[in-house]
Amino acid sequence: MSLTHEHFESNYSEAVEIFKNINPELKGSQLVVKVQGKTVLDLSAGVSPESLTTVFSVSKALSALAIAKLVTDGKLDFEEKVSHYWPEFAANGKANVTVRQMLSHQAGLIATDPQITVAMIHDNHAAAAALAAQKPLWRPGSGFGYHGLTIGPLMSELCFRITGLTMQQFYDREIRTPANADAYLGLPESLEQRVTELNGDVVPPSADLAARYPRSTAPQSGLASWGAGIVPFAALTNREGRAFGLPSAGGVASARGLADAMQWAMGFGSSVPGVSREVIDDMSQMQVYGYDLGLEQEHRSFGTIFQKSTPVIPFGSYRAIGHDGAAGALLYADPIGEIVFGYTVARFTYPGGFDREIQPIIDLVRRIATAN
Amino acid sequence: MSLTHEHFESNYSEAVEIFKNINPELKGSQLVVKVQGKTVLDLSAGVSPESLTTVFSVSKALSALAIAKLVTDGKLDFEEKVSHYWPEFAANGKANVTVRQMLSHQAGLIATDPQITVAMIHDNHAAAAALAAQKPLWRPGSGFGYHGLTIGPLMSELCFRITGLTMQQFYDREIRTPANADAYLGLPESLEQRVTELNGDVVPPSADLAARYPRSTAPQSGLASWGAGIVPFAALTNREGRAFGLPSAGGVASARGLADAMQWAMGFGSSVPGVSREVIDDMSQMQVYGYDLGLEQEHRSFGTIFQKSTPVIPFGSYRAIGHDGAAGALLYADPIGEIVFGYTVARFTYPGGFDREIQPIIDLVRRIATAN
Amino acid sequence: MSLTHEHFESNYSEAVEIFKNINPELKGSQLVVKVQGKTVLDLSAGVSPESLTTVFSVSKALSALAIAKLVTDGKLDFEEKVSHYWPEFAANGKANVTVRQMLSHQAGLIATDPQITVAMIHDNHAAAAALAAQKPLWRPGSGFGYHGLTIGPLMSELCFRITGLTMQQFYDREIRTPANADAYLGLPESLEQRVTELNGDVVPPSADLAARYPRSTAPQSGLASWGAGIVPFAALTNREGRAFGLPSAGGVASARGLADAMQWAMGFGSSVPGVSREVIDDMSQMQVYGYDLGLEQEHRSFGTIFQKSTPVIPFGSYRAIGHDGAAGALLYADPIGEIVFGYTVARFTYPGGFDREIQPIIDLVRRIATAN
Repeated sequence: MSLTHEHFESNYSEAVEIFKNINPELKGSQLVVKVQGKTVLDLSAGVSPESLTTVFSVSKALSALAIAKLVTDGKLDFEEKVSHYWPEFAANGKANVTVRQMLSHQAGLIATDPQITVAMIHDNHAAAAALAAQKPLWRPGSGFGYHGLTIGPLMSELCFRITGLTMQQFYDREIRTPANADAYLGLPESLEQRVTELNGDVVPPSADLAARYPRSTAPQSGLASWGAGIVPFAALTNREGRAFGLPSAGGVASARGLADAMQWAMGFGSSVPGVSREVIDDMSQMQVYGYDLGLEQEHRSFGTIFQKSTPVIPFGSYRAIGHDGAAGALLYADPIGEIVFGYTVARFTYPGGFDREIQPIIDLVRRIATAN
Repeated sequence: MSLTHEHFESNYSEAVEIFKNINPELKGSQLVVKVQGKTVLDLSAGVSPESLTTVFSVSKALSALAIAKLVTDGKLDFEEKVSHYWPEFAANGKANVTVRQMLSHQAGLIATDPQITVAMIHDNHAAAAALAAQKPLWRPGSGFGYHGLTIGPLMSELCFRITGLTMQQFYDREIRTPANADAYLGLPESLEQRVTELNGDVVPPSADLAARYPRSTAPQSGLASWGAGIVPFAALTNREGRAFGLPSAGGVASARGLADAMQWAMGFGSSVPGVSREVIDDMSQMQVYGYDLGLEQEHRSFGTIFQKSTPVIPFGSYRAIGHDGAAGALLYADPIGEIVFGYTVARFTYPGGFDREIQPIIDLVRRIATAN
Repeated sequence: MSLTHEHFESNYSEAVEIFKNINPELKGSQLVVKVQGKTVLDLSAGVSPESLTTVFSVSKALSALAIAKLVTDGKLDFEEKVSHYWPEFAANGKANVTVRQMLSHQAGLIATDPQITVAMIHDNHAAAAALAAQKPLWRPGSGFGYHGLTIGPLMSELCFRITGLTMQQFYDREIRTPANADAYLGLPESLEQRVTELNGDVVPPSADLAARYPRSTAPQSGLASWGAGIVPFAALTNREGRAFGLPSAGGVASARGLADAMQWAMGFGSSVPGVSREVIDDMSQMQVYGYDLGLEQEHRSFGTIFQKSTPVIPFGSYRAIGHDGAAGALLYADPIGEIVFGYTVARFTYPGGFDREIQPIIDLVRRIATAN
């Protein structure tokens, strides 16, 4: 544990106390917070700070940085039609779907008929081809629904058509390497020894949390009602899944690694941003808000790839970008306060998705970072 | 009662047991289910299988098949402006309203000011003229609301401008006759002897159902808040109403007739579809989802004319097309599983609209039909 | 108190009884209702009928009448881009935002970063310049949120770019003066002696009201989650605030004055409308409905500037135009029934915004006015 930033010194004990109270050892948790480019919290419990864990949909935030690089470099335009880069995507009424719509969960491609298989998910082009052929489950633009798994092949194929590299390859070369970040889309065999296997049991909630958030909504129920299948988590968390590093859900990282990648991209403090801040601001803008047709939940919102902070996932200001993961991991950056927040858990938190027990630390950091 | 399809044989007793438990005799119910073109359930209680009953808004599903025929024949384009076919419709800010918008309850024409009268409803052109002159109750496209009655004259006038036939005439010639289906928009005098008059009393709910679905929302309250009047049900269910067969709510059918019309159109199994499957797939695509400004209810959704299956009307997959009726009748088809489901009731079910007590049979059929 | 219209004579005692029961003396209330241009109710309690009070967002209804005049005179087109009139507004992705979008709370400008100060709010051009430079908090058109304060500088700058007059000046010359209405955007010093200072305490709710409307949602919480600050009410209600008359929230009026301005504009009965009825009908059309991103409340709806009547603010038919104010004041007109309704309160009502205790009088008036 270390604490280096002056603003946080007097609040160090409060943050540590909160961290202790959320049973981090039980979860196997890592937390790294940077403010203005300086690490102010670096905590871990139950796992080593160097431990690597599958972070599920936090992978989307890493992929989003790679997409931001494509736009920064002038290779991709969010307002362009997907079919401009990927002609086959025009099939079945999708000729006018824009990159922006596809990357903000509006394209209606949360599943395919027949269903995408695990084998297809581990072969990006096969899944992408099935998605390109699919008739949208809703008229693109008439609603939105979390493309939890499928946005991975969609992003990767788009990247491939532009660069000749998969999303994993492009991310590794353009983001992970220059950022020198322990955050992987496709984990090298040599790093397997640092992996903490995810414990599939759900962390029992504190009595307070259980009372406030009854487990009433099953996040995946939506897919079932669309007639779509669900790829089992095991396909993401075994060695094959880690090696493939599905850009939507197969990333493996430490909290330090997550925070390093994001800080490098944002360039808070005195460093140079790795990707255009103008592009990030554009991606942070809310594209959709309301009822998520995939998750079947209200008060969901997305910018371009990134999740928006909403009353049900309240991690920051309207300019904040981020993403949570199925087990509770979280990565976000907030230009208001210049905050980077990376959090991993090696066991499913209650009730799934955003780990509500980390909320007090989110609030504390935001209060301090925006105080002056 | 008959059961002919092998897949259902072992489940026959379960389906019959469920049917008995929903008080079909009290309701005067008929149920016909076809899978892959074969009749697997043909049940009735309290009425004869040949009995005909007003099916209210299930009429919209019959009309939708006729509209599908118009598109199949290249006479109608959903993306075209309504005013292309019907110039007077351009009045009062409606010049750019598309056929798609009008047929997915987005046109803001749920009522007129002054109010549409029963006489106008029974003279299609008069109601259509009032609707064509009306300023939309909301900016077309800014929301949607069930055009429960008014979509009838709107569809019929559109059909008339294209074919010179009312919707009733076109449906009878192009759908009902080739399908040889006991499902009428405009019942011939000679068939009146087979009619079971609707009992206006509401079927008392089972204790379980009453507890789960308190009758908290009055479906028609929305119209009142828009300042619009309501056409009394009696205008639909007396002889004049049956003879006219309002395309939105005045249809008269048996469950066999409903299922026959739908099976003929879809061509499940080895038969030839009566209308283009591509057109049906297009019409099945979700156009709107959310809060219905007419019904004042959440989680409503429409494709083109057809209702979509949603958490509050969960009848099928994302490709399913269907419609419920005010008293509880239901007709749907699901290409996933190749299911056709026709259900009539001769007495209002609780709490009105979709008859929730039929849900277990819907679920059972879907489970069996999609198992292999 | 006076009652002049024959239709109301038999209902006079009922309306007065309702008025007494809502503790008007505690609130310091004035109520004026006109039907077909004739005053049918003119009640006050706790304050003189000539008393003037800050009416907060009811000011928007007064400003809306001035905007209607601009359109009536052919100087403003709602479908035009804002940047056509105000080139600087094009900054940061707002080049295509229409006047209609901006005036129906869709532009995403509920706050600025850095935050608008009280000094800027009292200098219209400074606040307008900050808003013109701001990146929208959401993609314009992807949602809506009440621009509670900021629509004031936005409307005023638009007016200034077209006429060379601020909204306050234009309103005073084109609406207030010809209407001879005691309803001011910018109160002359000479009228200060008639002002009743607002009592900041909240009126305790009746037991019945408290039970039905638990104070669960803090209306302003939304702004906090957007990272935006809030201008204190005191800046609107002190002498400086009254003198400036912020077009969104700083108006000062009596109920008679509110009703006089609206009746002059609408011309109900035999008088000539002060602004085009066609323009008013256009402004009454629903532009947005649903979850308000600023207020963080469901079932909010706006026409162009005007609030729409919805299940949570049920003041009239679909053609009604109006606006409530933070303390409970209300002004609306309903062409169906030709009703004008002006209501002021000098103390915050429970739970804030629309005063639910006035609902029975709203309902009574509507029932009588639309009976024949």
